[in-house]
Amino acid sequence: MGADSSPYPKADRATRAEPTSVKIGLNRWIGNGHFGVIAGPCAVENEKQLMQTAISVSKSGATALRGGAFKPRTSPYSFQGLGEEGLKLLAKARTETGLPIVTEVLDPRDVTLVAEYADVLQIGSRSTQNYPLLREVAKTHKPILLKRGMSMTVDEWLFSAEYILDQGNGNVILCERGIRTFDHSLRHTLDLAVVPLLKEKTHLPVIVDPSHGTGKASLVPAMSKASMAAGADGLMIEVHPNPSQALSDAEQAITLEVFSSLMSELGLRK
Amino acid sequence: MGADSSPYPKADRATRAEPTSVKIGLNRWIGNGHFGVIAGPCAVENEKQLMQTAISVSKSGATALRGGAFKPRTSPYSFQGLGEEGLKLLAKARTETGLPIVTEVLDPRDVTLVAEYADVLQIGSRSTQNYPLLREVAKTHKPILLKRGMSMTVDEWLFSAEYILDQGNGNVILCERGIRTFDHSLRHTLDLAVVPLLKEKTHLPVIVDPSHGTGKASLVPAMSKASMAAGADGLMIEVHPNPSQALSDAEQAITLEVFSSLMSELGLRK
Amino acid sequence: MGADSSPYPKADRATRAEPTSVKIGLNRWIGNGHFGVIAGPCAVENEKQLMQTAISVSKSGATALRGGAFKPRTSPYSFQGLGEEGLKLLAKARTETGLPIVTEVLDPRDVTLVAEYADVLQIGSRSTQNYPLLREVAKTHKPILLKRGMSMTVDEWLFSAEYILDQGNGNVILCERGIRTFDHSLRHTLDLAVVPLLKEKTHLPVIVDPSHGTGKASLVPAMSKASMAAGADGLMIEVHPNPSQALSDAEQAITLEVFSSLMSELGLRK
Amino acid sequence: MGADSSPYPKADRATRAEPTSVKIGLNRWIGNGHFGVIAGPCAVENEKQLMQTAISVSKSGATALRGGAFKPRTSPYSFQGLGEEGLKLLAKARTETGLPIVTEVLDPRDVTLVAEYADVLQIGSRSTQNYPLLREVAKTHKPILLKRGMSMTVDEWLFSAEYILDQGNGNVILCERGIRTFDHSLRHTLDLAVVPLLKEKTHLPVIVDPSHGTGKASLVPAMSKASMAAGADGLMIEVHPNPSQALSDAEQAITLEVFSSLMSELGLRK
Repeated sequence: MGADSSPYPKADRATRAEPTSVKIGLNRWIGNGHFGVIAGPCAVENEKQLMQTAISVSKSGATALRGGAFKPRTSPYSFQGLGEEGLKLLAKARTETGLPIVTEVLDPRDVTLVAEYADVLQIGSRSTQNYPLLREVAKTHKPILLKRGMSMTVDEWLFSAEYILDQGNGNVILCERGIRTFDHSLRHTLDLAVVPLLKEKTHLPVIVDPSHGTGKASLVPAMSKASMAAGADGLMIEVHPNPSQALSDAEQAITLEVFSSLMSELGLRK
Repeated sequence: MGADSSPYPKADRATRAEPTSVKIGLNRWIGNGHFGVIAGPCAVENEKQLMQTAISVSKSGATALRGGAFKPRTSPYSFQGLGEEGLKLLAKARTETGLPIVTEVLDPRDVTLVAEYADVLQIGSRSTQNYPLLREVAKTHKPILLKRGMSMTVDEWLFSAEYILDQGNGNVILCERGIRTFDHSLRHTLDLAVVPLLKEKTHLPVIVDPSHGTGKASLVPAMSKASMAAGADGLMIEVHPNPSQALSDAEQAITLEVFSSLMSELGLRK
Repeated sequence: MGADSSPYPKADRATRAEPTSVKIGLNRWIGNGHFGVIAGPCAVENEKQLMQTAISVSKSGATALRGGAFKPRTSPYSFQGLGEEGLKLLAKARTETGLPIVTEVLDPRDVTLVAEYADVLQIGSRSTQNYPLLREVAKTHKPILLKRGMSMTVDEWLFSAEYILDQGNGNVILCERGIRTFDHSLRHTLDLAVVPLLKEKTHLPVIVDPSHGTGKASLVPAMSKASMAAGADGLMIEVHPNPSQALSDAEQAITLEVFSSLMSELGLRK
Repeated sequence: MGADSSPYPKADRATRAEPTSVKIGLNRWIGNGHFGVIAGPCAVENEKQLMQTAISVSKSGATALRGGAFKPRTSPYSFQGLGEEGLKLLAKARTETGLPIVTEVLDPRDVTLVAEYADVLQIGSRSTQNYPLLREVAKTHKPILLKRGMSMTVDEWLFSAEYILDQGNGNVILCERGIRTFDHSLRHTLDLAVVPLLKEKTHLPVIVDPSHGTGKASLVPAMSKASMAAGADGLMIEVHPNPSQALSDAEQAITLEVFSSLMSELGLRK
């Protein structure tokens, strides 16, 4: 099928002769042969936590640093993130380590602010069909990390990517992070088969978040290896110096040491 | 359990001695014994379509008029709604019929505009965990119709209501509209048991949208009656003068005549 | 569509001019205008429990008595039912009250035995795609109560009915009992919209089990009324003299008194 | 947690010091370091198809031959398998190639017959909570391949394994084959994270069926590699000399050539 007849002609694989690689920061890439690992804490909590994590994951070979400053929380009474203070800490960590910054934006009115600090704007799973936000982040022309919604089909996901591409921003990375199913043995059901399926449907890079995808730290290494074997272009992993003390998602963050070993096992340790 | 120990203390039933009724427009109510029916087209398409529908559903006994001016569409290439022009047509229909207006807002930056025209602000199923939007609509102190997300648990839904209540706006109506399940015999699975369950958990009124909930016009009358029997405080129904010509959701809209008969069968025809 | 081109030609509505009614016992019917209520305990536990329940639900206007003698239990270490002793108690309850007996059969090798005692053979939700069992129960020419499987589509359900009809046994009653979805607020998601949907697709009667469908006794009355309003041909309800002492499904059984009141509210009290 | 307090004490990992390996045929093993690949057609169709497949997959390094003689089909009008004739062809293929035979049994009354021919008895996804069948196959003391049900939780699956273990048969291999979820982009959602999760919970070997798990032949190689990387003890793969002509599951079978290449890529080609 040619791209002309595709329902999402700009995301469709038929559009481009070769897979897209997205430039992250000054000299790093994800896609088309570049395997990238985005690592860091769920939420930026304080300078010490962030710097310690950034320095360590950088040494272990991470491609970029993740950390949430604006956190979408199910309860209005949960910790909502440090906001701009968190962004400043992320920028400081970039200065310290050279790691590009990936962070989430929730509100179209915050896009300009977040884009001042971030190298990659993350659209979280609750925002993947927030079309005003998709249009707004697209306009920054920064790379966009587009997570899959918790009950989003593959086609709906590509339509959301199309909203960004249609604004002239082709720097979209898709991120599988688990879906909601009947089985609550784990937090979500990591849907790895979408990796090779997306490779058939789109030219965009696809990475996997085994931390949210399983919700269980002990499974992250095995599912990271499985993601790579399935053909993913990268990983997004929650790493925390002291997971049991994390302000959010404590169950699923791996330690600095486990991350370091995992990077070696994946053959990514520099 | 007292409200103090509830995870959503303001939405919790223990907070209030009696169920909440929400005032819609000048002199209509939903909740605590007031059964309300919100009817109208999925999208405002043009003046003729809207006026014809408004006059007819008003005669049939509808409580309020629904109609989308800002439409969240899966594809960027689908009809996205008439925007402010649609809001003006809705206001005109209100003038004509006296029906209060219920319409969706998608973008926090549009809230002030939409609130100028609408009597009730609708939060659609893609926006139910859009927390910046929830906070923004809350501040208008207008009634908020909070649809359930497609894969939202009952507790997550009450947390989203709590975001609104926590801003000092207690005028929240919950609307069940079907969830995503494995069975695609119908567009969604209408989860009617949440009606009596919510009555145990919260003081807020609960209505049902059998149009989205089934996606099939022929089932809307039966499921409207079932909703009432289950204890719902009202209904939200898609009605179109000529469903097969509708610009969106053509499969699920009922005709003006079917709506009129249904209102009689429900004992709501004035 | 004519029945000839239907994938399940014998179950298809186009096959018969009028809806099927199934004769239960000597002089009771379910379907085509006959609303039937099958009530009783999840499991037959002992004579006293069963007789007390049977006499009470009979007075309240029940159509038939349910009770499990062979129980499919997730764990091999749970109570598996009284077996033939349970069947004998059911037969005794029939003699006492005149109520026809509905009981489950799990094993094709038990069909002859169970059919000696039962008026209706129940196929439980774990057995709805147990095709050897379906063929075997069909051959008894007794009425078959065919529950929906926990993750069964409407079409798959009608195919399972077709297995029975294709053996020349047209006495099939379909029973919606809740499906598995992401939301575990309740034990299952009761899918009431299948009632009017099935009325369009098949001539077979459709009843609803709000006890398994919700897993919560306090919701059973509301969902019973909703089922009737949706057009169901009957109900299957778990009733126990002392639910908190029940050997299985204690959370979802209603008391004899609640059942009596419910039958009055449904207009079914004789 | 010790096995004593486990709900499934015989399947629980705490029961055994080391992982179980299951002997397949005379001198092959699955589990505890032995990676096994079970390959063959969905259904035995005729001698030529089966022999050609058996000889080819044997050369490619398969551990065992699969092939269905008794097929559980959604429709009573679909091809139901060759029955005993199919079993005889499987036995002939074993004589020819030395490959042990894995085949499904549906009916407790067929267990003795099937066990005469088969080396491994397969319990399909529709039968995983067919407890009479589980008890019957257990008594043969043959290895049992226990597929996961389409909407079965991990705990329910281990309870089904416990039914077999509790009969004194410890030769159980668990097989993940995809679950039912809202997303129908693929036939099922392959739940690979259960592989490392099961490794934490049980000593039993776990294999993966990427053919049913995805329903799409082009994804089978990638998901086979991912399964191995996730820590699975083996694979079950549908292979057909001419997939487009297959009598069932034509979409998901890979060719003899693709299987051969895949075995090389997995490092399993002898």
